[in-house]
Amino acid sequence: MKVEILSTGTELLRGKNVDTNAAWLAQQLGRAGLEVAHHQTVDDHFGRLVDAIKLAASRSDLLLLTGGLGPTEDDYTRTAAEEAFHRPLEYHADLWKKIEARFKHTGTRMATINRRQAFIPKGAVVLPNPHGTAPGFLLRDGAVHFVAMPGPPREMQPMFLDHVLPKVAKRPDFAIWSGNSFGIPEGTVDEMVKKIVGAHASYGLTVRWGRVNITVRAEGPHRKKVLVGLSRRICAALGDCYMDAEVHEVVARKLIASKRTLAVAESCTGGLISHRLTEVPGISQVLLESVVTYSNESKIRRLGVDPALIAAHGAVSEEVARAMALGVARTSGAKVGVAVTGIAGPGGGSEKKPTGLCYMAVNDRVESKVFVGDRSHVKERAAGYALNMLRLWLNGAEGNGRTAGKAGKAGKAMGVRAGR
Amino acid sequence: MKVEILSTGTELLRGKNVDTNAAWLAQQLGRAGLEVAHHQTVDDHFGRLVDAIKLAASRSDLLLLTGGLGPTEDDYTRTAAEEAFHRPLEYHADLWKKIEARFKHTGTRMATINRRQAFIPKGAVVLPNPHGTAPGFLLRDGAVHFVAMPGPPREMQPMFLDHVLPKVAKRPDFAIWSGNSFGIPEGTVDEMVKKIVGAHASYGLTVRWGRVNITVRAEGPHRKKVLVGLSRRICAALGDCYMDAEVHEVVARKLIASKRTLAVAESCTGGLISHRLTEVPGISQVLLESVVTYSNESKIRRLGVDPALIAAHGAVSEEVARAMALGVARTSGAKVGVAVTGIAGPGGGSEKKPTGLCYMAVNDRVESKVFVGDRSHVKERAAGYALNMLRLWLNGAEGNGRTAGKAGKAGKAMGVRAGR
Repeated sequence: MKVEILSTGTELLRGKNVDTNAAWLAQQLGRAGLEVAHHQTVDDHFGRLVDAIKLAASRSDLLLLTGGLGPTEDDYTRTAAEEAFHRPLEYHADLWKKIEARFKHTGTRMATINRRQAFIPKGAVVLPNPHGTAPGFLLRDGAVHFVAMPGPPREMQPMFLDHVLPKVAKRPDFAIWSGNSFGIPEGTVDEMVKKIVGAHASYGLTVRWGRVNITVRAEGPHRKKVLVGLSRRICAALGDCYMDAEVHEVVARKLIASKRTLAVAESCTGGLISHRLTEVPGISQVLLESVVTYSNESKIRRLGVDPALIAAHGAVSEEVARAMALGVARTSGAKVGVAVTGIAGPGGGSEKKPTGLCYMAVNDRVESKVFVGDRSHVKERAAGYALNMLRLWLNGAEGNGRTAGKAGKAGKAMGVRAGR
Repeated sequence: MKVEILSTGTELLRGKNVDTNAAWLAQQLGRAGLEVAHHQTVDDHFGRLVDAIKLAASRSDLLLLTGGLGPTEDDYTRTAAEEAFHRPLEYHADLWKKIEARFKHTGTRMATINRRQAFIPKGAVVLPNPHGTAPGFLLRDGAVHFVAMPGPPREMQPMFLDHVLPKVAKRPDFAIWSGNSFGIPEGTVDEMVKKIVGAHASYGLTVRWGRVNITVRAEGPHRKKVLVGLSRRICAALGDCYMDAEVHEVVARKLIASKRTLAVAESCTGGLISHRLTEVPGISQVLLESVVTYSNESKIRRLGVDPALIAAHGAVSEEVARAMALGVARTSGAKVGVAVTGIAGPGGGSEKKPTGLCYMAVNDRVESKVFVGDRSHVKERAAGYALNMLRLWLNGAEGNGRTAGKAGKAGKAMGVRAGR
């Protein structure tokens, strides 16, 4: 089955919005054994949308379209489907009732144009939308399945999972293993993985904020066995740098499992470490508190940092990072304290302390690094680095025989420093 | 000039990564008077990449490709360009020297496969990459300009701005006005804008986390004058709901301009408010500190919240939200205190206090709301709502004749509640 994703919305081709739906759909489809062959993005233009649907229908079997189901003038999905498949729109009184009820429930005044959303191409199956007013629909045209879903992810995702995926999922004829590495540059990970994978399977790498994701894909009757073997060897080669999830997820899981309490003191990362950790359900069991001490005064009063330390070494220094980590642990009663202090930029740098210089601390252990990039980049990299230090510290605390805070054997053998 | 964007990377069609490059490029091009006609996404497959480049060259004038310039086996951009345009790859010794120097500088061991990155199609112009090892290139083939840039945004963006945009930008024959609204549902904003814009121009709306973006586009010789008139009427109709930037940017600017100091106390938003605010350079002048008081104990000790209040009303209550906001302002010495307490889910809800219930406070003013969605969604909406309350409070404090914390006249006239 050939799958094609169509994203519609002028905002996507003008760069107002980033299309996250295509990636999410591709992910879900991949897990269900289906691979996306094509992806087109079309703006809110009736003619171009009709053309795109026709092109997709000529080369693909399953068409997944997101967007253009809203109530406004520039929402063309219903009329474009009508045109492309020659299916006149029909009014559904029951849909209209549901739309009315939804507006009543949220206490918002309904605009009359919302009535458009009660029209669906003839013969199409309605896909309910409990999270918004726009219903989706599924239309069969010969061998082609055309699915129209709303653009907002929180409306589209449950609709896809509940009403589309069960109809199209198949038993996959390939298997995938995926893992992450933190602390080794992409090129080096690539050489390592290439040597191990050889001709047994195919693989790909993606990088984000210092984390390298490795995905290995195997086919054939022994695909699962092959993957088990390969993944074991990759994990062994990566040593302590290996992670089976994102770094904040691994850290949260380890903290919760070991019932170790955490407190965070952030300066230049501005709450990002805490934001990441609190994306994980259950973190409230172990994360006691987090303090964003942007001012010196706040570092002194909230964390008990010695003003003399700041005067002698500056707020961005090894000494203050350590004092912040130990201070937040002490004042909150947490087992572990994590701290970051640095210069996120664009201003604030000097010759001795350049923009991007950050000190990351886990209790009394401090590491420093200059991250080159804009403010957001420095925040992201420093937060990731600190979380990875915490991960390694937790590994050490678990007493698994590895040295906390250092890259594993694999990393060292390849001349790689921890956290790079 | 017809522009086409090509994104390459299996990770994009498998959903491992979200393609932010296409949106960013489209934005930059739009500002420079160029509109994107097509966008294709291709996986790391030599044949399909060649086909996509050929298709694009047959219908577009400027081809912007991102990705596939890395050092690894599955990076095909160089060889695909060689094939599509019949331009053999040539080795550039000077590029190789730069790549070697970069590795030396960062102290990382270089993998031999990085040598691939020193090969460029014959006759192409090298585009320098000061932020990574992969150089880009620009190749002219008749009327077609083909530009290959690396995938990582922080490498691609400066390359595009410094070396591509100046070559392709033209004087636009249209003008665009863009503004945001916070506190009115999309359908209502649409009716309002439609009535104002009429046949004078075209417009589009996009929604994110409660913020509705409005973009109006005018053509013709009087386009600027038309836009000035329309934008004035839209702003007047939106009243206090109108914003000229994102809510955290508006708030940061107002705080900095008025030299009002801020402190933040977050519970369920987990640091997100603080993270957003600290994306804005200069915020350190006014943001004294932020405390993520995840535990009751932390609310009591850090913010001076009365334990009796928590016992009587629960941590998620109007009373505790107010005590947190006033407490963080008092303990930090800030002029304004902002607080959020709520149930982000997935667990923790009850019949009386459902998952998604959040209390947002600005000093002693508290509002509550049930946000329906997953943990991330609740965090985003509650953070946005609190920031918008702060924005309205700052409007009121500026003494502009509007009531702080309430939607403007337009919102009220349309029966819309603040912050919805």
